[in-house]
Amino acid sequence: MNEMYEAEPAVVLKAAAALREGRAVMIHDSAARENEVDLVYPAIHCGPESISHLRSAAGGLICSAIGNDVARAVGLPFMHDVLAWAAASYPVLSSIIETDTPYGGKPAFSITLNHRNSFTGVTDADRSATVKAIGRVAEIVAGGKGDAGRQFASTLKAPGHVPLLIEAPGGLAERRGHTELSIRLMRIAGLPPASVVCEMLDARTHRSLGLEDAGQYARDNGLILVEGSHLH
Amino acid sequence: MNEMYEAEPAVVLKAAAALREGRAVMIHDSAARENEVDLVYPAIHCGPESISHLRSAAGGLICSAIGNDVARAVGLPFMHDVLAWAAASYPVLSSIIETDTPYGGKPAFSITLNHRNSFTGVTDADRSATVKAIGRVAEIVAGGKGDAGRQFASTLKAPGHVPLLIEAPGGLAERRGHTELSIRLMRIAGLPPASVVCEMLDARTHRSLGLEDAGQYARDNGLILVEGSHLH
Repeated sequence: MNEMYEAEPAVVLKAAAALREGRAVMIHDSAARENEVDLVYPAIHCGPESISHLRSAAGGLICSAIGNDVARAVGLPFMHDVLAWAAASYPVLSSIIETDTPYGGKPAFSITLNHRNSFTGVTDADRSATVKAIGRVAEIVAGGKGDAGRQFASTLKAPGHVPLLIEAPGGLAERRGHTELSIRLMRIAGLPPASVVCEMLDARTHRSLGLEDAGQYARDNGLILVEGSHLH
Repeated sequence: MNEMYEAEPAVVLKAAAALREGRAVMIHDSAARENEVDLVYPAIHCGPESISHLRSAAGGLICSAIGNDVARAVGLPFMHDVLAWAAASYPVLSSIIETDTPYGGKPAFSITLNHRNSFTGVTDADRSATVKAIGRVAEIVAGGKGDAGRQFASTLKAPGHVPLLIEAPGGLAERRGHTELSIRLMRIAGLPPASVVCEMLDARTHRSLGLEDAGQYARDNGLILVEGSHLH
């Protein structure tokens, strides 16, 4: 871990330590934003049992987030930009592109991916392989050695079953979503800037899992719950 | 139900009756293809409890499939075509576009959607609203009255949390995936050609749920399991 992070709150350092060991952590963005808790793993440590855990315990959309530096190195666009380009050929797209979410800012969605060796792409084994391959690309970018674009194109294909999320160009100073918060945590932990995230849902209310219930889940399962306000 | 369907196998007619009542059915494509069982609801009957059921009992990607006629009426493209157009601006895309899946044919993926009134877009309530809005567009196309394109653009936005799937132009004669099979079942049931589908996964093997286990789930829960070979 980098010395510059010694001033981080203890809960953040504990979460970073858990992530380095390949364990999940939980991140709450803010009561003033989505007010949502995501279950998060580092992409490079996302095994099949991680996917299984995310879908059974969280239940949202299992997405992989990457640092903006990774997206730039590979040349990956946001989906709203892809749709804007394609609207020249498919006019309906121009009238449905979301550029301002209800909770503020543009959506983080990029393209969707499958590992080239996956079969259906959706099983725990296949989605794990996809997320790990994304993590490997981030590792190459973070390490400054190797051709990230070539690694990306030789291991991944689109469209697929894992939506990719891209950190806002300005990071947390620009957008404080789970994408930016999880990538910040990966950087603090000294891990490649790539995560797998999934929203925790509540089948009783059919809404997001409330912060109190999320806190109970964290205590029951020995997981660290990080408040977005603790990350800068 | 249309008279032309009187020659359908009894299991198909039972499944059609269940769907008309808003109940789930299960569809197995084929042992020679994905060899996967999807849990399926009609889009117009997809309540929040349906989404909750799909994510807890199936665990795959919760997608909404539409008839090719619906896609044509609205002017909706396949995602591989969207990516091909955007590749002029983002060269990496040209090297990762999947045009031939391991199980045969092009992927059915189109764009991803949220209902315009959704907040995060991922909750049971939000995804239900999104799928129902897709069902409403299909209803307009099937009824031959009203402006499906206007209905689509005024109720839906992209990118979102519900991947849209488009039936192959030639339907089952061209592609025998869960997209085409579920749309065929909706048509047989006299329902608008729009469904919500989710792959049944196995957390023990980290693969697709085996056909034997799927059959047990169907019996335990009083659901009809339709073999793809029964649909033409």
